[in-house]
Amino acid sequence: MAQKEPIIIRDKTQMRNWSRTMRSQSKLIALVPTMGYLHQGHLSLITQAHKHANLIVVSIYVNPGQFSPNEDLSTYPSDFQGDLKKLINVPGGVDVVFNPKNLYDYGGSDGDGDDGGEKGDGVVSCVEKSGFGHESWVRVERLEKGLCGMSRPIFFRGVATIVTKLFNIVEPDFAVFGKKDYQQWRVIQRMVRDLDFSIKVIGCEITRENDGLAMSSRNVHLSLEEREKALSISKSLTTAKSAAEDGQVDCEKLRNLVIQCITEAGGRIDYAEIVDQQSLEKVKFIKGPVVFCIAAFFGKVRLIDNMEINL
Amino acid sequence: MAQKEPIIIRDKTQMRNWSRTMRSQSKLIALVPTMGYLHQGHLSLITQAHKHANLIVVSIYVNPGQFSPNEDLSTYPSDFQGDLKKLINVPGGVDVVFNPKNLYDYGGSDGDGDDGGEKGDGVVSCVEKSGFGHESWVRVERLEKGLCGMSRPIFFRGVATIVTKLFNIVEPDFAVFGKKDYQQWRVIQRMVRDLDFSIKVIGCEITRENDGLAMSSRNVHLSLEEREKALSISKSLTTAKSAAEDGQVDCEKLRNLVIQCITEAGGRIDYAEIVDQQSLEKVKFIKGPVVFCIAAFFGKVRLIDNMEINL
Repeated sequence: MAQKEPIIIRDKTQMRNWSRTMRSQSKLIALVPTMGYLHQGHLSLITQAHKHANLIVVSIYVNPGQFSPNEDLSTYPSDFQGDLKKLINVPGGVDVVFNPKNLYDYGGSDGDGDDGGEKGDGVVSCVEKSGFGHESWVRVERLEKGLCGMSRPIFFRGVATIVTKLFNIVEPDFAVFGKKDYQQWRVIQRMVRDLDFSIKVIGCEITRENDGLAMSSRNVHLSLEEREKALSISKSLTTAKSAAEDGQVDCEKLRNLVIQCITEAGGRIDYAEIVDQQSLEKVKFIKGPVVFCIAAFFGKVRLIDNMEINL
Repeated sequence: MAQKEPIIIRDKTQMRNWSRTMRSQSKLIALVPTMGYLHQGHLSLITQAHKHANLIVVSIYVNPGQFSPNEDLSTYPSDFQGDLKKLINVPGGVDVVFNPKNLYDYGGSDGDGDDGGEKGDGVVSCVEKSGFGHESWVRVERLEKGLCGMSRPIFFRGVATIVTKLFNIVEPDFAVFGKKDYQQWRVIQRMVRDLDFSIKVIGCEITRENDGLAMSSRNVHLSLEEREKALSISKSLTTAKSAAEDGQVDCEKLRNLVIQCITEAGGRIDYAEIVDQQSLEKVKFIKGPVVFCIAAFFGKVRLIDNMEINL
């Protein structure tokens, strides 16, 4: 198949104009939002997107709004040229790479389409008390709280907000998210329902390395030794899933099994919870579809993984 | 001019389909969001809308999401048939009246377009701890806090959220708001900017009765005596504005003048603040464009009014 060079768009008005032109030609558009440093997991989202839409937009934007000051925004890996090469070679290709510079800089516009003499200062903070910088946030008030929301209280606020912005800029028919970020996927699904976005959210299965490690842009920060130890996450999840399928439905016992395995391998557990697949509320005994969600540190790298258990 | 009968649409999918059909014919659509019980102020918004758009959608929906349990949701006045008559007779007419039953009832859909087996229970609350009801809210974190936000802490959360929903359902090019709800207008403007809605927000001047009372659906609840006393709001605002234009720029003195006048008339002040027109932050001395915002009770009726002072 001939390679396709995506159009690179950095301006949001230009992005929306492209989408509107395509939609006026009855094309269906899928958006695959990413923070770049693409791996096979991202590319699998594009493959899924091709099943639904005529045209694929991949956004590459490291969203400052979802990082706390103490998190790894400054060291988040990036490789735009490498990403482009991968996107050129993905089967079916990609039509647009949307790569904006700063989606929180409003350059003096006050939102009514006129220049209102304000200065958007691009500050993204939950504590800013005054000024004209960004201050509108979408919150999915229940789903944002547990799991990753415990240790990252502003994370899903940032995610829901940037996805809303991307939805409003790209105006896609479909949006594709990986189930590795399970809570994120559910947050976005709920937001789409609650705010009446006319967008179908597609969830894609986790892509794993041959040895089971869930693919993540952050894996690059693991030393070889840490990477080996981190296999304890997927291994113990697989063991727990088998145990559940064999009749062990006591979540406390399944959690202990996983926590022990990861801890013995040298990992530091952030959380290990078995939750309802829809509400993400903790479950004591597995009676229906649940998902076992893990976050654990190996060295300084925080990894997440999960496994659905459909009893 | 021939009267035009608007189409009445109650279903959100049908509403969006109408908009998309019209936009595919290059029509520009303006949305005028209302809670019904229309008065001349609302009709003036429609007149403004006609200056910008080819087609006018008026939504009539009393939004439970912006009322606290102790507020007047249950007694909010309504008169759908009377509203329709007014809309038929407004110059230029109205194309669609969007009158949904319950925009928080998701009927088992989980937002991915499939039925996910969930039950949307339509509960709208900031304290609901579990369940599958509505839980996504848009917050404009600074602008929502002062003025009406002091005594109505969830009000602008509810307003920003329902307007987001209406924007996503109607997909208008323009949205028209009255400056009587000055803070609401600014909140929506900021939200449109921050969340990248492709919608131009139009703000319309306050429509007043001949004696100066700002038009409001709630005025119907005033007794004749209360209504007479309530004139103290617009009268004292006018006096304050003249005083400022004559050189009295000390906000404490201007506030005292207004508070005294309203209190002596028998009103109970909720707030009386002179704030920056953009940031809505309190001002001590008028040096640029400000707006004098009032909320006051006459009997059980809470009225708001404001006046811009452009020095």
